[in-house]
Amino acid sequence: MPIPESAALASPDFDGAFRARLHDLFAWRRDVRHFKADPLPDGALERLIETACLAPSVGLSQPWRFVIVDEPARRQAVLENFSTCNADALNAYAGELAARYANLKLAGLREAPCHLAVFADHATDIGHGLGRRTMPEMADYSVVAAISTLWLAARAEGIGMGWVSILDPAKIAAALDIPREWRLIGYFCIGYPEIEDDRPELERAGWEQRRLPADHILRR
Amino acid sequence: MPIPESAALASPDFDGAFRARLHDLFAWRRDVRHFKADPLPDGALERLIETACLAPSVGLSQPWRFVIVDEPARRQAVLENFSTCNADALNAYAGELAARYANLKLAGLREAPCHLAVFADHATDIGHGLGRRTMPEMADYSVVAAISTLWLAARAEGIGMGWVSILDPAKIAAALDIPREWRLIGYFCIGYPEIEDDRPELERAGWEQRRLPADHILRR
Repeated sequence: MPIPESAALASPDFDGAFRARLHDLFAWRRDVRHFKADPLPDGALERLIETACLAPSVGLSQPWRFVIVDEPARRQAVLENFSTCNADALNAYAGELAARYANLKLAGLREAPCHLAVFADHATDIGHGLGRRTMPEMADYSVVAAISTLWLAARAEGIGMGWVSILDPAKIAAALDIPREWRLIGYFCIGYPEIEDDRPELERAGWEQRRLPADHILRR
Repeated sequence: MPIPESAALASPDFDGAFRARLHDLFAWRRDVRHFKADPLPDGALERLIETACLAPSVGLSQPWRFVIVDEPARRQAVLENFSTCNADALNAYAGELAARYANLKLAGLREAPCHLAVFADHATDIGHGLGRRTMPEMADYSVVAAISTLWLAARAEGIGMGWVSILDPAKIAAALDIPREWRLIGYFCIGYPEIEDDRPELERAGWEQRRLPADHILRR
């Protein structure tokens, strides 16, 4: 169903104070693995998804498909798949790195009050294929843009998100009974974080460090 | 080079006024194809890239590689590849849709003062492969998260971005003389937009309409 045309509004002016706060938001957004059990307010997740749909999408194709996972048996299947994949990942490391990996907490699937799976619909006709001919992966990237939007909007409400990628996408699609043409982009734990921090948890845990942005810029 | 540990800071409080402004930012971010020729202030693009590096990345792998494209011959090669790919795309449409496609302006490559190509480094060891074993595409998604961050930070300064995907990634990598292991995620025009609007240009042009978010939510 199309959205009715909005009345023309004055373009907002984003001032220096807002930009400083926005920078704080980027700096304090975290990939959260330690959640409180407190539920989100009624309707909060749906509002965040609505905001996520303001993201850019290739050809205005809006390929994002949000699956709110509440059924305990389905959540359990996801948790079991994570456990299997995480054990496989641990086996692929050796020595000191294996020991460090074993000590990481990489998902909050048990505690987080909300589970959200996000898919890209590869079969959608919306957008008439514009911009996807030479780079069909643009549909997936549009969904990532929506996820990024949701993440920031959530953090601005004090709500944390954690992206779980240590999963077998085919198993997750089966566990959630999802159309064949949908590709899993991400599975998310959502809830209130145990702590707030401006350093990534993997840096605090000594797994990896942030590099200087200038090291990743080339000129041509 | 690792970034030195920052002093512990109090967690910022994002209030209702900020959240309302943030929603405006999401709503007024646009995919821009009509640019003024005015250059960006010195250092503005580098600052935006620095902000983009606050994005989440799988295993803290920071696989984003930013290529600022200034050389006229390289820009010309990109423009020519866009023209070829866009003509091919037009040929794939018929009738009314072809006529509508032909009328769209899909890139601002000629006018935009800045060209930025963004790649994912598939060969990086940073992050020790964490979170990429079952979903190797996570490296690409991390780069999209950085792009989304850059886009919002730019818009908050009144700077517009346009994502050009009507390109042959192999041709672009060759034109920019990029390592083989880097995958093109997006090519961007950046500059001051001719107009500001809260409706996507493709909607204003009658190509496609935004759908209701509720139409894209499932429960399981």
